[in-house]
Amino acid sequence: MRYVVIMAGGSGTRLWPLSRQGMPKQLLELVGGTSLLRMAYERVAGLVPAGQILVCTGAGYADVVAEQLPELPPENLLGEPVGRDSLNAVAWPAAVLAAKDPDAVVAQVSADQIIEPVDAFRAALVEAFEVAETSEEVLVTFGVLPTSPHTGYGYLHRGEPVPGHNSACAVLEFKEKPDRATAEEYLAGGDHWWNSGMFVWRAAVLLRQLEELVPESYEIVTELAAAPAKLAGLYPKLPKISVDYAIMEPVSQGRGTAHIVAVALPIRWYDVGGFPALAEHLATDDAGNAIEGRTVAHQTANSLVINRAGADHLVATLGCEDMIIVTTPDVTLVCPMAAAEQIKSLVGEVTERVGTAYS
Amino acid sequence: MRYVVIMAGGSGTRLWPLSRQGMPKQLLELVGGTSLLRMAYERVAGLVPAGQILVCTGAGYADVVAEQLPELPPENLLGEPVGRDSLNAVAWPAAVLAAKDPDAVVAQVSADQIIEPVDAFRAALVEAFEVAETSEEVLVTFGVLPTSPHTGYGYLHRGEPVPGHNSACAVLEFKEKPDRATAEEYLAGGDHWWNSGMFVWRAAVLLRQLEELVPESYEIVTELAAAPAKLAGLYPKLPKISVDYAIMEPVSQGRGTAHIVAVALPIRWYDVGGFPALAEHLATDDAGNAIEGRTVAHQTANSLVINRAGADHLVATLGCEDMIIVTTPDVTLVCPMAAAEQIKSLVGEVTERVGTAYS
Repeated sequence: MRYVVIMAGGSGTRLWPLSRQGMPKQLLELVGGTSLLRMAYERVAGLVPAGQILVCTGAGYADVVAEQLPELPPENLLGEPVGRDSLNAVAWPAAVLAAKDPDAVVAQVSADQIIEPVDAFRAALVEAFEVAETSEEVLVTFGVLPTSPHTGYGYLHRGEPVPGHNSACAVLEFKEKPDRATAEEYLAGGDHWWNSGMFVWRAAVLLRQLEELVPESYEIVTELAAAPAKLAGLYPKLPKISVDYAIMEPVSQGRGTAHIVAVALPIRWYDVGGFPALAEHLATDDAGNAIEGRTVAHQTANSLVINRAGADHLVATLGCEDMIIVTTPDVTLVCPMAAAEQIKSLVGEVTERVGTAYS
Repeated sequence: MRYVVIMAGGSGTRLWPLSRQGMPKQLLELVGGTSLLRMAYERVAGLVPAGQILVCTGAGYADVVAEQLPELPPENLLGEPVGRDSLNAVAWPAAVLAAKDPDAVVAQVSADQIIEPVDAFRAALVEAFEVAETSEEVLVTFGVLPTSPHTGYGYLHRGEPVPGHNSACAVLEFKEKPDRATAEEYLAGGDHWWNSGMFVWRAAVLLRQLEELVPESYEIVTELAAAPAKLAGLYPKLPKISVDYAIMEPVSQGRGTAHIVAVALPIRWYDVGGFPALAEHLATDDAGNAIEGRTVAHQTANSLVINRAGADHLVATLGCEDMIIVTTPDVTLVCPMAAAEQIKSLVGEVTERVGTAYS
């Protein structure tokens, strides 16, 4: 049967003070009162029955996830006691699903982005399921058609088409984040796609690669699938490693037993990785301001104001340009758009100076 | 006997959201936890007994004044039902004091500024009392020695010294706020002082000028002194006019019965008329930030942060330069220093958009 695992880990410091240790980016109600997790759920709802959608996230977020996804059966929430990078966020669900359904075919999708159009995403997912089901030893990844020479993404170098499918083709190589000149070559050449970090595979095929390439991880996740009560003790022993580095790259180089196929994901995706990106997804006024909450923006332009300090609290801005102003009941953040990348450094100083109460 | 009347009217929009309709600038605890009113009181305390110090302010501020000046006898608070400009803030106290003490000599001092050094202020006040007491028909004003060609103040053109006193001299003319070139001439010439807006006179002398120059005001304030219960009905009928325009200028031109003498006020004064001026009176960190309340100012320079949102609320700034950030429990203000002059316009839009709850 088909399953979808939504990966929703991470902490998302760059949206502080909205995001916190206990409230990662994916769970925030960012755009139109909905969260990236809820959007990710709705993108896959209907492709498989509700009982076959799982969420893998931090154990501490279980309550918020349950609140945002009332359709999710409680046992379908895989709560990591500690973060252990992306390998285990795919290996653990694969082991759990394989134990109860040896024919499980699993899509691992992320909740990190806004994706448009959703129909194209769903069509690609269906194609990837079909590729995984009709090939014996295959790991399917998704390639996003690049629209810019982005240096923040990894790339896939795609090869020959796989007959019988719409867009599927072999993957010749995984490329780490390139420099600008290389990224421009990729874009001009047309045979490189952005590495989406989303996958479809038979659980058994993934586990076979894992057993060969990262046996210590394989042993722990299969033990966990058989004995869930050992979670707190065993999970921290898992190696901290990314699925690309541990599985996809070695397999693309001929190690492991499978081969890799990419399916085209003809979508625009938006990271919402920080406030400037978020601002682009909110409605703006005539002066280019994106505003949420009770605010008077006077002689103010191209600024983002998110006022969540409380129902009656007013944020008044005057003469501001390209500013970010975010209030919560316990924190007010003020910074220029251009400084948004440094919020992590700010949170570091906050923690150092006034403790972890705000981080 | 000698009396001191502290004038503490006005609303002080330029310090919004700290200052409000119900909380004018003079009553705010701005610097070191003390208010301009309290500073003004302490400047004159000891020069006359506590029972001879009065405060003239808006009736609505009575509770705050009583809290900040516990030494003030309740009957020494003259609460104006409505603001009626500076003429009545001197004429009404003169009438009240003359009614109970025909020899009353009254100093009218303002609570608008920080004044340094206080000793020089007190010495000038004593000299002015002596001038007023030893001349029969004199209105004493104070001239601040100018330190810059300020175009925001009126000026006094001083004439011959008055024998027998330290700095007292005749006043030839009152000058309205000059243009820059004229102000520079005044500064270079050395015979112009800034018009301080503070005065000393016998109450009877002031009232004699008032009777001749603004008889409708004279009639009302003498009636009010005899029948305080009529305050709410009569006060609004007083003409709205400044003491300079109604009394000082005409008298300096030979109208009225008195002549005008200026005493030198060798002090620096600070208007604290807005946030940039306030910032200059607060201690700064190595990056030039003036900060009050729980704040982490990261990569931030030359900014003013006043965080009064609540004990546990944190203001975090990142990459800010020359910014003003002020929080109260109900308002957060963000504006560049350079825009501070427009706060009145901002408050106008706030009132228009979300009503008077915040103004």
